[in-house]
Amino acid sequence: MVTKFEGAINCMVTVFHKYSLGHGHPHAMNRKSFRKLVETECPELLTNPKDPKTLEALLKEVDSNKDELMSFEEYLFLITRLMVDAHEASHE
Amino acid sequence: MVTKFEGAINCMVTVFHKYSLGHGHPHAMNRKSFRKLVETECPELLTNPKDPKTLEALLKEVDSNKDELMSFEEYLFLITRLMVDAHEASHE
Repeated sequence: MVTKFEGAINCMVTVFHKYSLGHGHPHAMNRKSFRKLVETECPELLTNPKDPKTLEALLKEVDSNKDELMSFEEYLFLITRLMVDAHEASHE
Repeated sequence: MVTKFEGAINCMVTVFHKYSLGHGHPHAMNRKSFRKLVETECPELLTNPKDPKTLEALLKEVDSNKDELMSFEEYLFLITRLMVDAHEASHE
């Protein structure tokens, strides 16, 4: 049986594919899919997730090779960023 | 309401504190706690999680500053490593 922790790891991978495969790419998502992911999956973890400025700033931060796509490697950076925020919030 | 994705992010932070606070440290865990985390939380994600060699190799890989503790930053590396493995497995 999969533990809650393992389920969480698998959930992250599943969510990535949900949005990358949505526009037919197994390894990266475009701006539109990225917006949908953020608005749908993590509305509570970000301040103003529907604000275009928040989304643009986040994509800029995550999209390290500036190709306007979020690859799985860049997605790992997003996960890291969200975990750092959640960790800080847990100590407030 | 928290989404499944947000729950997964929070789960990762909770699991870290479960093992770091277990020996009284809010920001790092020792070798014993690290072993317990791996054996208890991710037995399915690693090959031979109870093999001391697997654990030692993993701690060595994760413990970038070689202080024999796993800090939250090093834990993020563990999460990344497990996600890369899970992502590769999803494409097999």
